[in-house]
Amino acid sequence: MEKIKPRTLSGFMELLPKEQMLFEEMVSILKETYSLYGFSPLDTPLIEASDVLLAKGGGETEKQIYRFTKGDSDLSLRFDLTVPLARYVAQHSAELTFPFRRYQIGKVYRGERAQRGRFREFYQADIDIIGDEKLDIMNEAEIPSIIYRAFTKLGLRRFRIRINNRKILNGFFAILGLSEIAPEIMRTIDKLEKIGAEKVTAMLLEMGVSNENAAKIIEFIGTTGDSAAVIESLNKYKGQNELFDLGASELETVVTNMRGFGVPDDFFTVDLTIARGLDYYTGTVYETVMLDHPEIGSVCSGGRYDNLAEYYTDRKLPGVGISIGLTRLFFVLGDRNLLNPEYPASVSDVLIIPMTDDMAPAVKLATEFRENGVRAQIYTEKKKFKAKIGYADKLNIPYAVFLGEDEIANGSATVKNMKTGEQNTLPFSDAVCAVKNAILSFEKTTVICE
Amino acid sequence: MEKIKPRTLSGFMELLPKEQMLFEEMVSILKETYSLYGFSPLDTPLIEASDVLLAKGGGETEKQIYRFTKGDSDLSLRFDLTVPLARYVAQHSAELTFPFRRYQIGKVYRGERAQRGRFREFYQADIDIIGDEKLDIMNEAEIPSIIYRAFTKLGLRRFRIRINNRKILNGFFAILGLSEIAPEIMRTIDKLEKIGAEKVTAMLLEMGVSNENAAKIIEFIGTTGDSAAVIESLNKYKGQNELFDLGASELETVVTNMRGFGVPDDFFTVDLTIARGLDYYTGTVYETVMLDHPEIGSVCSGGRYDNLAEYYTDRKLPGVGISIGLTRLFFVLGDRNLLNPEYPASVSDVLIIPMTDDMAPAVKLATEFRENGVRAQIYTEKKKFKAKIGYADKLNIPYAVFLGEDEIANGSATVKNMKTGEQNTLPFSDAVCAVKNAILSFEKTTVICE
Repeated sequence: MEKIKPRTLSGFMELLPKEQMLFEEMVSILKETYSLYGFSPLDTPLIEASDVLLAKGGGETEKQIYRFTKGDSDLSLRFDLTVPLARYVAQHSAELTFPFRRYQIGKVYRGERAQRGRFREFYQADIDIIGDEKLDIMNEAEIPSIIYRAFTKLGLRRFRIRINNRKILNGFFAILGLSEIAPEIMRTIDKLEKIGAEKVTAMLLEMGVSNENAAKIIEFIGTTGDSAAVIESLNKYKGQNELFDLGASELETVVTNMRGFGVPDDFFTVDLTIARGLDYYTGTVYETVMLDHPEIGSVCSGGRYDNLAEYYTDRKLPGVGISIGLTRLFFVLGDRNLLNPEYPASVSDVLIIPMTDDMAPAVKLATEFRENGVRAQIYTEKKKFKAKIGYADKLNIPYAVFLGEDEIANGSATVKNMKTGEQNTLPFSDAVCAVKNAILSFEKTTVICE
Repeated sequence: MEKIKPRTLSGFMELLPKEQMLFEEMVSILKETYSLYGFSPLDTPLIEASDVLLAKGGGETEKQIYRFTKGDSDLSLRFDLTVPLARYVAQHSAELTFPFRRYQIGKVYRGERAQRGRFREFYQADIDIIGDEKLDIMNEAEIPSIIYRAFTKLGLRRFRIRINNRKILNGFFAILGLSEIAPEIMRTIDKLEKIGAEKVTAMLLEMGVSNENAAKIIEFIGTTGDSAAVIESLNKYKGQNELFDLGASELETVVTNMRGFGVPDDFFTVDLTIARGLDYYTGTVYETVMLDHPEIGSVCSGGRYDNLAEYYTDRKLPGVGISIGLTRLFFVLGDRNLLNPEYPASVSDVLIIPMTDDMAPAVKLATEFRENGVRAQIYTEKKKFKAKIGYADKLNIPYAVFLGEDEIANGSATVKNMKTGEQNTLPFSDAVCAVKNAILSFEKTTVICE
């Protein structure tokens, strides 16, 4: 029979078992963290009606969509988790309780040009808090603390959350009389770090900003120093524009309460260059950078918006949210050797190796292990001893248990620590206890080792 | 602005938060159970190249596939998790350790005619054990114990795993000289329970089986009684066909060891009518029925196969696996009122309600709760007290904590048990302990209540 070459499509990540276990551990830490903050899980279909998914329409995204017909239906694969959230909240608003806190970790699809580290199918891990008509500023202070806790739990040590408030930028541009081109200016200054002040100035001039105003903008967004200093620097602009003043006051509230929520000063900074490309954001905006890997760009971004679902409903649904591009993050962590090689990504805690034909004692022991919460498997294949122990070795299984004739006769089992080589023959129930206790005492290491 | 009506496609399940929490709990119980048996998680792309996915080709399935082109690529959404597993194992066989145990819980797509309880996007939860060239019969005995443990943990009490061995059926048909039409006979007798002996006989006659042979088949598969009696009944056919004898011996081994693996006799039965439609199976086959809801059909099916990946590789990869149609199971459980209404599907353990403008004490308390593993959220919106407490009520949050002026002055908090109405004012850290202990002591109820 002619064989079809087994292969995955370019831009689609697929992991081997050990990597997959690390990835799953990351997902489970995110879920656990989001749950601690009262977010409920959400799962929406991967396929949506095209008119629903593309209600906003236009733009770069539309070209990248996986769109197709089935029967009479014009269908599309979701390209993010925000549009499905908007659709969900609008559709079920009568049945939801607001503020509605949800997390969603799921795959999204973008037919981008394939290149290293870019994926066409990738996980996003999103949290959003949606209010009904209003949403308190405190939520904007809480979001960074969730990121801080999640990243720290994953093992990241060298990251910083950058925050800004678009009201400050919009207010400042209004003071300069540049409100009409504020969105373009926003998109330009967002590139400051990448392309430098000179190029940003050139771009500003090109879009019709005067020399004087361009210099003012560069001076304004270039304010550096600790968060207190940057906030302090805003004072001299106050009293000229309401929006600006509101933004400055929001930023102060967010910074003060972020500390209360437990984000240490070393892990965040106020950065007036952060604008986020999307017009959608109206208040606080966030980006998160890995200090030793700035080339990666932001690994967790988001912000405050005033109108989540305007394409679907008249109801005003403001919110704040943040998204982690999980597949890309996992890829770069692996690529930069930041995944912990010592992380105990083993499929089992113990491998039971029967040395006789009678499997009954092995079955009994496996069942006892499992009833005690110890992940156990029996090596049932009829192979040489070397192959059996090699299986435990290859899969990093920390304990092997031998059941030979002597052991069976005495109701005992020989437990081998695969790392140290140490082995002890113990009564059945003691063997179960010994492995159970050893597993529980494993020092909790983190997935990421930075 | 004209609004687009927010909606999901017909045949695509989407859950409200409370139901979603129950669904997630089911998934997490399955994952935990599969892990106890040494299965590692697998995640494969939802999109595959059509030639890879449809390597086997033909059949009913092909019509149901979501197939489309993107650029030059002919793509299809996966319709089960078995074909991607075959592709994965063939592709990565050099990097895998055999026997390879994997579980995969993921969405699959079939464009079936929409009808109540039928889904076009649905979760399957699969486990498989893949051997290299050989795979020991013990694995076939272990699989039902995994199902037994998972279902019991979910809260199912009234189910039965039916097992059979296709070698017995194929051997028996050979004894009758009917090997050539064995697959058709198999598909026919599989319908016995649904359509009755008379119709099965008529169908057998129609396909050219003699009256005498049809009667023999009906007698053979009609053998009932406990497992021991059915196995006993096979004795009179032994010695005529090697395959039959091998099947009978395998069945005995499986039954004996299933007990060893902890499946009580009440929860399984040998049933010679179980054939499974697919030609693919070569040995033990399984179905699982809910005793009080036979109309649902099998909720967990699978079996032994000899050649997982023949379309992709010459390497012989025998295996055994089983699959739960999770979305459909969840739907019928809800439909039959079997989801536990008492299950504590709450998004938070505690809602902190600040009664003053100063949020700092609430933030501090929330952080302490979270550091103690208690899922906490603050009600930050500026609403009347009734709305605040109503939020806890609607979301089934079991504890509310009030922080008024008095409490803040004394460094205390008032903890209210939302169920009993009882409330106590306690020092901050005692409040955290009180809720933490109460949460830990919640009696563990099950998702399903049968």
